[in-house]
Amino acid sequence: MTKPSSEIIFLGHCPDRVGLDARITGFFADELFNILDLSQHSERGRFFIRIEGSEEGSPQSIQTWTEKFFPIARELDMAYSFHDPLERLRVVMFCSKTLPCPLEVLSRWLSGEMRIDLRAVVSNHLAIEPIIRKLDLPFYHTPTTGDASLFEPMQIRIIEQHSPDLIVLARYMKILSPHFLGEVRTPIINIHHSFLPSFIGNDPYEQAYRRGVKLIGATAHFVTCDLDEGPIIHQDVVRIGHQFSVPDMKQVGADIEKQVLASALRKFTERKIIQWEGRTVVFH
Amino acid sequence: MTKPSSEIIFLGHCPDRVGLDARITGFFADELFNILDLSQHSERGRFFIRIEGSEEGSPQSIQTWTEKFFPIARELDMAYSFHDPLERLRVVMFCSKTLPCPLEVLSRWLSGEMRIDLRAVVSNHLAIEPIIRKLDLPFYHTPTTGDASLFEPMQIRIIEQHSPDLIVLARYMKILSPHFLGEVRTPIINIHHSFLPSFIGNDPYEQAYRRGVKLIGATAHFVTCDLDEGPIIHQDVVRIGHQFSVPDMKQVGADIEKQVLASALRKFTERKIIQWEGRTVVFH
Amino acid sequence: MTKPSSEIIFLGHCPDRVGLDARITGFFADELFNILDLSQHSERGRFFIRIEGSEEGSPQSIQTWTEKFFPIARELDMAYSFHDPLERLRVVMFCSKTLPCPLEVLSRWLSGEMRIDLRAVVSNHLAIEPIIRKLDLPFYHTPTTGDASLFEPMQIRIIEQHSPDLIVLARYMKILSPHFLGEVRTPIINIHHSFLPSFIGNDPYEQAYRRGVKLIGATAHFVTCDLDEGPIIHQDVVRIGHQFSVPDMKQVGADIEKQVLASALRKFTERKIIQWEGRTVVFH
Amino acid sequence: MTKPSSEIIFLGHCPDRVGLDARITGFFADELFNILDLSQHSERGRFFIRIEGSEEGSPQSIQTWTEKFFPIARELDMAYSFHDPLERLRVVMFCSKTLPCPLEVLSRWLSGEMRIDLRAVVSNHLAIEPIIRKLDLPFYHTPTTGDASLFEPMQIRIIEQHSPDLIVLARYMKILSPHFLGEVRTPIINIHHSFLPSFIGNDPYEQAYRRGVKLIGATAHFVTCDLDEGPIIHQDVVRIGHQFSVPDMKQVGADIEKQVLASALRKFTERKIIQWEGRTVVFH
Repeated sequence: MTKPSSEIIFLGHCPDRVGLDARITGFFADELFNILDLSQHSERGRFFIRIEGSEEGSPQSIQTWTEKFFPIARELDMAYSFHDPLERLRVVMFCSKTLPCPLEVLSRWLSGEMRIDLRAVVSNHLAIEPIIRKLDLPFYHTPTTGDASLFEPMQIRIIEQHSPDLIVLARYMKILSPHFLGEVRTPIINIHHSFLPSFIGNDPYEQAYRRGVKLIGATAHFVTCDLDEGPIIHQDVVRIGHQFSVPDMKQVGADIEKQVLASALRKFTERKIIQWEGRTVVFH
Repeated sequence: MTKPSSEIIFLGHCPDRVGLDARITGFFADELFNILDLSQHSERGRFFIRIEGSEEGSPQSIQTWTEKFFPIARELDMAYSFHDPLERLRVVMFCSKTLPCPLEVLSRWLSGEMRIDLRAVVSNHLAIEPIIRKLDLPFYHTPTTGDASLFEPMQIRIIEQHSPDLIVLARYMKILSPHFLGEVRTPIINIHHSFLPSFIGNDPYEQAYRRGVKLIGATAHFVTCDLDEGPIIHQDVVRIGHQFSVPDMKQVGADIEKQVLASALRKFTERKIIQWEGRTVVFH
Repeated sequence: MTKPSSEIIFLGHCPDRVGLDARITGFFADELFNILDLSQHSERGRFFIRIEGSEEGSPQSIQTWTEKFFPIARELDMAYSFHDPLERLRVVMFCSKTLPCPLEVLSRWLSGEMRIDLRAVVSNHLAIEPIIRKLDLPFYHTPTTGDASLFEPMQIRIIEQHSPDLIVLARYMKILSPHFLGEVRTPIINIHHSFLPSFIGNDPYEQAYRRGVKLIGATAHFVTCDLDEGPIIHQDVVRIGHQFSVPDMKQVGADIEKQVLASALRKFTERKIIQWEGRTVVFH
Repeated sequence: MTKPSSEIIFLGHCPDRVGLDARITGFFADELFNILDLSQHSERGRFFIRIEGSEEGSPQSIQTWTEKFFPIARELDMAYSFHDPLERLRVVMFCSKTLPCPLEVLSRWLSGEMRIDLRAVVSNHLAIEPIIRKLDLPFYHTPTTGDASLFEPMQIRIIEQHSPDLIVLARYMKILSPHFLGEVRTPIINIHHSFLPSFIGNDPYEQAYRRGVKLIGATAHFVTCDLDEGPIIHQDVVRIGHQFSVPDMKQVGADIEKQVLASALRKFTERKIIQWEGRTVVFH
């Protein structure tokens, strides 16, 4: 968990070999950095590490930390980043007609519960517009009829304009094209209304009803070109009974979608996620 | 669950004896009412029943149903009520400085997820005022310094003016006086930030930290004159680890409070709760 | 839940129409039967009911109840049954090499936690034999090499000899043939080591690892000729993290399999399950 | 999780200061030890660490590792231990009349699911004796009538004879005296049939029924002289409804007790628990 007293978070991954922890923590010791939480995990030849702690020496900027660590990273062939745990992440949210998930993100932004700074809302539907406008947030209506080349350029310009750290698809019911994903290099988190890989595709609740499952779920994942196949960040389920009609399932499904999306966003803002080869490492 | 096709909900409880189901369902059969869901439970000599279904004959008003059933209720010494499942309940919300729970109620009102009609927000703090005003909802600031006789009369007048079906205390950090509870006969639901009866009173998270518990919870209950002792409606918990500081616990605690409060409100709006002797019957 | 004071359980289902509850509960009232729990649910034109209560008049046998109700059932085109909640169900268990699930069934039989009377264990493997023999239970080793016609006749004879009320496949790693299912009319409950319909087939944990899911589950279902497609009785999941190797997942998977199988058995022994058109109604 | 390839587990805790990770992991790097999992956490001035990995150099015994690390531990004022993850822990189980928990431990020992080696069963009741004898395990009947000085000396001798690594109180319904706890230095894990600190003492289910709680739980904790106040290892809950009588609650309570006890035992056998000042650090 993010401690109020923590001043720096470090994330890194590289090929595994003996002595990596000593090499990395030795660097931090030399810089008089007190490690309050360290999680390291290796699997199938890859080494993943997250460090959180406080500067006991004179404070240094994220950029200074990044530059000082560079020689070690080059030596270890390591992808790495330093973060300020107090920084609020710039977020652009995409949504459609379904309101619970977008309102969940709005609510957590308004309450300050999460370190996000909501910059703009993009929607192919007008349902949420009045609320967004009342809250004095930029709202962009980009109807998604016709070919993607007709509306994606505008969406890409909106993103360029707001330069978010994260894009959240809060039940945005339109698939992003490979072109879009190629242009936009920002991480994108989507909430899928089923417990993937069950019930891929449309109408998961109707499928779940017919199959008579006893739990329905939701999945938050990073968006990649493989539709419904991006690296899973978080999942959860809720128990249902025989008496649940499809509309009932949608209602409790919306609850679990909101919780799963919020948990994934929190993990992201806490810098606890590393993506690697179609899977995620999500630190506790 | 509330079916779109359901037209009437019936709730009742009375002393148990042989033949009650036959007597009650016979009445509905005579009225050409098709029972789609019936739950009946007896314990310690008390009979509880909930019926949901659709009128196959000509539609009758809630008032007509209520009057027609009256002779049977008198015969059985039964407390009962009829409800329209599509009706939105008028709600007045009380809150203080903590925003997640009030924003959860707001969010579910805005999304239409729940059959509530939020009429007004009362707070002894100004934190939520700007959001409430932007949403064009009546906001009442009733500072709660000094004796209850200085501010409760105003709160009581606000309630009289809006005549709610339900009052929600969404982390309202002030105890309602016996006088207030005597004057206001509306049901009041409170969310308590612990898994009652653990950690009654202030600072439950600090208590939980010291005791080293591995789960923290929340409890939604009806408010009675017994502080923290009203009939429990819903409870849930979330797992924590040794690495959770007290602020971390407050953060995940806020999540579970929101979920528990929302579930309790849904059960209330679905007319699934009967109070009896300090406990609740909550139908599935 | 099964009350110690309950003396009779009634289960039934038939085409829905107005007045069914009145017709059925009228019968029980005439017999001076006090209904302590009644759950009734209708969907898509089918009516399902479960009644539990106590005889206030002179006690009657299950057979008498069954005969007395017959005219009503014929009139309503209803499938129905009466049960004694104190009766222990005769069970034959099939297993293979994996021990946790079979030992869970054994343990619940030994402790008396469940109303089952374990009569025999059939296995295509010898792993469990020593334990079964020490407990003085009949053990049958039926190797399943070669064609089903070589070993299923023996299995069918074992079942005929013990005439179970229920067959439990406690991680029995062999598919039962349509011939077997045609001959053996006893209900069969299987535990599947995934959250169906995810990861149907072999090696679900390896599939789950590769997909990077964050929950793994188990499914208890009735066995039908559609492999892995029988009506689902119960499901549950357990949270896993990136640090779980496939053997780790098997270990926690075994825990959740045991819990799910035990819950399904309890629901079955409590007479809370009705099968209908590929789904189950599982009463609370 | 314990990896099959892991050869050594290291646990330690000491006063926190800058550079501890570097000092400790430097030692392992010098010994050509590859760290596969490292979890480190500091709070309130105390540093906790767990390391799991494999020897890339020539294998060394636990004793050699322990001796080599000693100078560092002395320098850091550190309590520490090395463990072989494949070692089975010697366990003595205490139980009374209630069978589900003791049978759960038996079942997990028989299945090999957990690295425990059950050496003996001690009971103040004869209920479990026939099963224990059939399984060829030593069974000791120590009636606990009268003063503790009449039966605890015999229990202490049994423990001395079997020299367990762990004592499990699997619903042993008798409080161990301070004298016993002073003599027996082996860790003792108890399962308590409530979600502590709720419903301390006798009859937690009756208390839970009266209070109308919606969840019941269980707590596994280390035994100390403070009755029901030892450091909590694991807790979990299960949802109940209004229809649950006290016997129903006992039945589902037994399920959750078994799960919680088993989880605590697994954490202990995986060497994931450090006790410190009335709390536990339980690594993931």
